[in-house]
Amino acid sequence: MVHNGIEYGDMQLIVESAVLLRQGLGLEPAVVADVFSKWGAAELESYLIEITADIFRTEDPVVPGGLLLDAVLDRAGQKGTGRWTIQAALDLGVTTPTMSAAVDARVLSAQVELRAEAEAVFEGAGIARPPERLEGISADDLRDALYASKIASYSQGFDLLGTASAERGYETDLGEIARIWKAGCIIRARFLDRVRAVYAGSADSAPSVLALAPDFATDLVQREQAWRRVVGSALSAGLPVPGLAASLTWFDGLRTARGSATVIQAQRDSFGSHTYERLDTPGEAVHSTWKPAS
Amino acid sequence: MVHNGIEYGDMQLIVESAVLLRQGLGLEPAVVADVFSKWGAAELESYLIEITADIFRTEDPVVPGGLLLDAVLDRAGQKGTGRWTIQAALDLGVTTPTMSAAVDARVLSAQVELRAEAEAVFEGAGIARPPERLEGISADDLRDALYASKIASYSQGFDLLGTASAERGYETDLGEIARIWKAGCIIRARFLDRVRAVYAGSADSAPSVLALAPDFATDLVQREQAWRRVVGSALSAGLPVPGLAASLTWFDGLRTARGSATVIQAQRDSFGSHTYERLDTPGEAVHSTWKPAS
Repeated sequence: MVHNGIEYGDMQLIVESAVLLRQGLGLEPAVVADVFSKWGAAELESYLIEITADIFRTEDPVVPGGLLLDAVLDRAGQKGTGRWTIQAALDLGVTTPTMSAAVDARVLSAQVELRAEAEAVFEGAGIARPPERLEGISADDLRDALYASKIASYSQGFDLLGTASAERGYETDLGEIARIWKAGCIIRARFLDRVRAVYAGSADSAPSVLALAPDFATDLVQREQAWRRVVGSALSAGLPVPGLAASLTWFDGLRTARGSATVIQAQRDSFGSHTYERLDTPGEAVHSTWKPAS
Repeated sequence: MVHNGIEYGDMQLIVESAVLLRQGLGLEPAVVADVFSKWGAAELESYLIEITADIFRTEDPVVPGGLLLDAVLDRAGQKGTGRWTIQAALDLGVTTPTMSAAVDARVLSAQVELRAEAEAVFEGAGIARPPERLEGISADDLRDALYASKIASYSQGFDLLGTASAERGYETDLGEIARIWKAGCIIRARFLDRVRAVYAGSADSAPSVLALAPDFATDLVQREQAWRRVVGSALSAGLPVPGLAASLTWFDGLRTARGSATVIQAQRDSFGSHTYERLDTPGEAVHSTWKPAS
């Protein structure tokens, strides 16, 4: 099941990258295909990248000279496995925002009439319809954003696997899972060899989450600036990038030692006396009157 | 239950705005409080804004001269109602990304040790820790981004209420719900009067989703540019804004009549022969060989 959740994430991230290449950079389909082929010959080597390259090269058998992709109705099917994965993650207290974004994107895709209505309403009200071009972004930037988001997505997915295993006493070998997936399934990819390597040692040497393994952390650091520029630029242009954005905000939340939940706790204590903990007396439930001294 | 999901969203969006005011704009707590008070005297008038202003004015009774908020441990509690709302939404095929982001933020907040570890790892690897300042952003921009995101969040929440009602034959009066919530609950706000007005007429005159009601659509159009700049600028600075970002990407997905799910469908048909529909023969399941002519 987690495999399918990760698969949803992979597909969504590739699809957003495809939109950014074609609409955001204005590349012709054949060029988009070549970019994917190039990516698929390096670190992003994977079955899904390979078939996506082929998709951008497949002619429409009905409309001579047309791209078959352009004849497809934009309503994505799903069999529910992505949804179940998210529901399980919620029960286990693991966050899987990239997967959630992927499932939400499929649900929204099914609402074809609503989207047509919304586009008409907002266009009528003065919001330009994309495509707008991404400013100052190269195909290499998109590759870096995709790879960083993929690390984020797999980090969430393997965190879910590890947590489920610990919770239920499965003693799942995460490295072995990566090996099996690499051997033959839809998400098979060179990336999984790297995941396997992370979990190859003793359980004690495994990182808390995949993104903190030294090699992956270094990858994220190297790609961070491109990742931010790509997502920011796509949001500015109005191109939908829910998966890339959710991956990046996940990363920023993860790396924030002192987070904003202080305000949540203060609000909860203010309106519902839910109490909170102080940094200087951890473990002790405190309640305050959240009013300025008069 | 949906009330609580919406409450999670409201709180998260306010909290992110508070972080952007304080860290992103570098405002002193007393000034942050004044900004919230000003917002609370206009279109954002609400109980949660009001108590948040008070929170930024409350002195620490233990540390003289300190802000009580700064003594709070950043681990947010939750009673599970937000999670259940999302699980129900998934079952009903309604997307609630703002709520999901809010629930995920609480889950992540509980992982205090993991976040400390992650900050150390990425800081050690060269990623600067915020605060970095937001470029070219004013408090008014933040207000606009918050208000636009609130429309997105309530649009999702009322879509969920309406769908659940239709699915289960509840015949829920959405305007009446807005009236009851306004009368006294944690999310009470001037905003709910506007929601009530939208659903005051006949069911036939109700918009497909709240965001498409003419007044709210106009609000979104007026705030769109500030919304994009705020989220883009926060992502660029590395300040976590999962709720604001999820609201904006929801909006961009909604208003895209011809979405990217074409590529998802092509991928699914390519790897699993799941078939797809053509625009020129809707309703008919088609399968293709997604390979370029050789």
